[in-house]
Amino acid sequence: MQAYQTLVKELREIALLGSINSLLSWDEHVNLPQSGAPHRAEQEALIARLHHERFTSPRIGELLAQLESSDLVKDPESDAAANVRNARRDYDRATKVPTELVEEMTKTAVLAQHAWVEARKKSEFKIFQPWLDNTVELKKREAGYVGWKDHIYDALLDPYEPGESTANLRRVFESLRDPLIELIGKIAESGKRAPVEVLEGSFPTNLQEKFGRIGAAAIGFDFDAGRLDTTVHPFCSGIAGGDTRITTRYNEQSFIESFMGVLHETGHALYEQGLPKTEHFGEPIADAISLGIHESQSRLWENLVGRRKSFWRHFLPKAREVFGSSLKNVNEDTWYFAINEITPSFIRVESDEATYNLHILLRFQLEQALVTDELKASDLPAAWNERMKKYLGITPPNDAQGCLQDIHWSMGSIGYFATYTLGNLYAAQFYEQAATDLGDLDAMFSRGEFLPLLKWLREKIHRHGRRYTAGQLVQRVTGKPLSAEPLLNHLRAKAKELYAV
Amino acid sequence: MQAYQTLVKELREIALLGSINSLLSWDEHVNLPQSGAPHRAEQEALIARLHHERFTSPRIGELLAQLESSDLVKDPESDAAANVRNARRDYDRATKVPTELVEEMTKTAVLAQHAWVEARKKSEFKIFQPWLDNTVELKKREAGYVGWKDHIYDALLDPYEPGESTANLRRVFESLRDPLIELIGKIAESGKRAPVEVLEGSFPTNLQEKFGRIGAAAIGFDFDAGRLDTTVHPFCSGIAGGDTRITTRYNEQSFIESFMGVLHETGHALYEQGLPKTEHFGEPIADAISLGIHESQSRLWENLVGRRKSFWRHFLPKAREVFGSSLKNVNEDTWYFAINEITPSFIRVESDEATYNLHILLRFQLEQALVTDELKASDLPAAWNERMKKYLGITPPNDAQGCLQDIHWSMGSIGYFATYTLGNLYAAQFYEQAATDLGDLDAMFSRGEFLPLLKWLREKIHRHGRRYTAGQLVQRVTGKPLSAEPLLNHLRAKAKELYAV
Repeated sequence: MQAYQTLVKELREIALLGSINSLLSWDEHVNLPQSGAPHRAEQEALIARLHHERFTSPRIGELLAQLESSDLVKDPESDAAANVRNARRDYDRATKVPTELVEEMTKTAVLAQHAWVEARKKSEFKIFQPWLDNTVELKKREAGYVGWKDHIYDALLDPYEPGESTANLRRVFESLRDPLIELIGKIAESGKRAPVEVLEGSFPTNLQEKFGRIGAAAIGFDFDAGRLDTTVHPFCSGIAGGDTRITTRYNEQSFIESFMGVLHETGHALYEQGLPKTEHFGEPIADAISLGIHESQSRLWENLVGRRKSFWRHFLPKAREVFGSSLKNVNEDTWYFAINEITPSFIRVESDEATYNLHILLRFQLEQALVTDELKASDLPAAWNERMKKYLGITPPNDAQGCLQDIHWSMGSIGYFATYTLGNLYAAQFYEQAATDLGDLDAMFSRGEFLPLLKWLREKIHRHGRRYTAGQLVQRVTGKPLSAEPLLNHLRAKAKELYAV
Repeated sequence: MQAYQTLVKELREIALLGSINSLLSWDEHVNLPQSGAPHRAEQEALIARLHHERFTSPRIGELLAQLESSDLVKDPESDAAANVRNARRDYDRATKVPTELVEEMTKTAVLAQHAWVEARKKSEFKIFQPWLDNTVELKKREAGYVGWKDHIYDALLDPYEPGESTANLRRVFESLRDPLIELIGKIAESGKRAPVEVLEGSFPTNLQEKFGRIGAAAIGFDFDAGRLDTTVHPFCSGIAGGDTRITTRYNEQSFIESFMGVLHETGHALYEQGLPKTEHFGEPIADAISLGIHESQSRLWENLVGRRKSFWRHFLPKAREVFGSSLKNVNEDTWYFAINEITPSFIRVESDEATYNLHILLRFQLEQALVTDELKASDLPAAWNERMKKYLGITPPNDAQGCLQDIHWSMGSIGYFATYTLGNLYAAQFYEQAATDLGDLDAMFSRGEFLPLLKWLREKIHRHGRRYTAGQLVQRVTGKPLSAEPLLNHLRAKAKELYAV
């Protein structure tokens, strides 16, 4: 018992260091004056080093070993067992990879990002290619230290989706792929076009911020325990139980991009605000399960809720109140169609709810091919374009709009992309279950009632932190393993309603 | 040489921890959501502990001892000598006071502040009295550990004004006191009243912010290396060479309070931006000398520059451009008189450039009486009111407007108040010298030229960091020791011009 208390106290201090770096990073992206950047990098590097040194100290390993053979962890669902199990997982991962390799990856990532920025700007893949080569080699070495059973890619998925396997993701993603290609093809053939021009108008930043706050508050964001600010690449930062910060950016010609972004980040924030971080700060059971589960919460509020007609039955009149004349001539049906356009495009982050997943599937396959040497870095542009043609029927005019569009690989984040589509899959599967459990959600949304759904998410998902793996959680909440059916059903229903296919 | 490099590297990391706490504190006062406060307190306490542990480690003492007997410190004005000398000073102070006493003072300060808030709210001194007793006892114990030669109060001044003595401050403050009482008395008898009503109008916050930015930039604040934000109790935070942040608050009925506050904080910020923090971050020579010297920079820009007629010859037309009709009927002379009202009042922070110093002198004397047991805490209200009557001719209607008005003593900051008047004294003495060296400053200000003065301050004061003590610096820059004459001359000239006395 004393060893457990010692471990929890130590994990708490380590997590405090982590939360300090969260604030340093939030401030870096929201407030930092230009000339403050070099100093901020030093601050963050120091805290990251202290964090790493303390978490990988042999003392943690000793405490874990002692606890693993104690009665305290007998019930696998108990706080203590969940904490010890997850701390072991993280400790092993952190200690298996040698410090020199971590440092080499960090340095390579900085240089690779510079090269990527230049390569994308000039649309010259050759500038980035040697760095992609290096990065893939480093990730293979990392995987070697971490170890894997079935597939090298398992070791790369692992930091983002603990316990997930390449085989399971392939099974689910493949059952999504062909039906989705078919559906998107039918939509393209339908000849119907969403009336996206109604989204354009004049929307002053201060009014967009006001409307964003109304939206975030309505779905349950606690502004006494959080903030909304402006940044270039929006994100959510869960600094502490009482301090969760979301960010957005504004385009004065259209408010929908910012508003859907706010719903997305609020989804992440509601998860953070619902985790048991006040009582259990620093313990694994107060943390998020995985990036996929985190993303499921943002996608659920953005897409499953925020792109519903019933949602806009409540919010379109509110938007008219805030923005006045720019929305005078839009009706609910037109608006609903406009924000649900489904059409192939080159850029992942600008793509819609349906085609988005094919952007991910493409990356998921290419990543595996790269780390198994089936694909050479030099052949990436051709492989990318070939798959874009096959999945979405379009060919990028250049690599900037093709295989150079995302920052992830330059940062060494191989294995990350899958979590976005996992988020969409989990979101749809959770939503389907919530609708079964709670009854007529659309009727509630039309009346502006979003808290019953939030309460359900808190009860079923948020409060458990990392007590279950993602796979255990989806089985527990929905009675089924992860499946592509709920997302496909959701997209098919929408396609039928809007495109009559 | 290697010991020196080791010391500098260690001091640099320790200072990085300090600058991380600066950001945590800045964010606490500018951004922190209400529910984030308990977590923030834990973050700050952890960093403060790590900072203290590293700085007081015996290793630092060993390095210092080794360096003190080396050739490296032979020239007392060299970087190395100044760094070793100041690091020794800070190290001795930090290691002399036992951790248990520091912790007791920290805890007492938290509780004493709570009691003070309640006491001030109810205007009941009795609620605060036992905490003042405790605080004085703790400060006496602290002084006992630190040690002193002539006066126990020397040990309490020391953290704020390194090397300053009670005897020297008494000498200067006493030569200020009687002439200032006489001058303020004459002004009161003159029957003239400043036309302060012209300061009132309608000044929207966004326009005040715009004008504040114009003012700060004009006197040299580098917005690429800093920010301006809103808070409740304005302050300046020098987080790093490239990251200095000022804050203000707004009153929509009058912009002058916020604007003079911005000039004040910009004065602090110009010092921070002028210290050699980029090349020498973490070394004592990159730090400010003392609170008094820091305050001299804020007071110089706020009072010596910002309350000048020539300053407003340039800025009143700019203010008219920004604020429009609210300033239509004000002329330069009226405005100049209005912002230079001199009249006795109860509250220090609302008092003017002249009477302010009597508020300080009163506190300076009472603090000494408290720590030498000449004054019992229970007799403080009577002693306070008696001195207010003697110095300013007025008696506070209650203790909330008397001896309970300031937070400082409840925080254990005894010895701090003196630095405010020291700031005024240094400011006047530096300004007098700058006018001698640079010629017609008023002509420059009228044309909006403030950078020659800033350049002079950078050259004479900022770039030296802690190479000299405050006493050495004032002697070096002005050829004289600290004196009350420049401030008295400045105030007398203003009184003559405005009140004809």
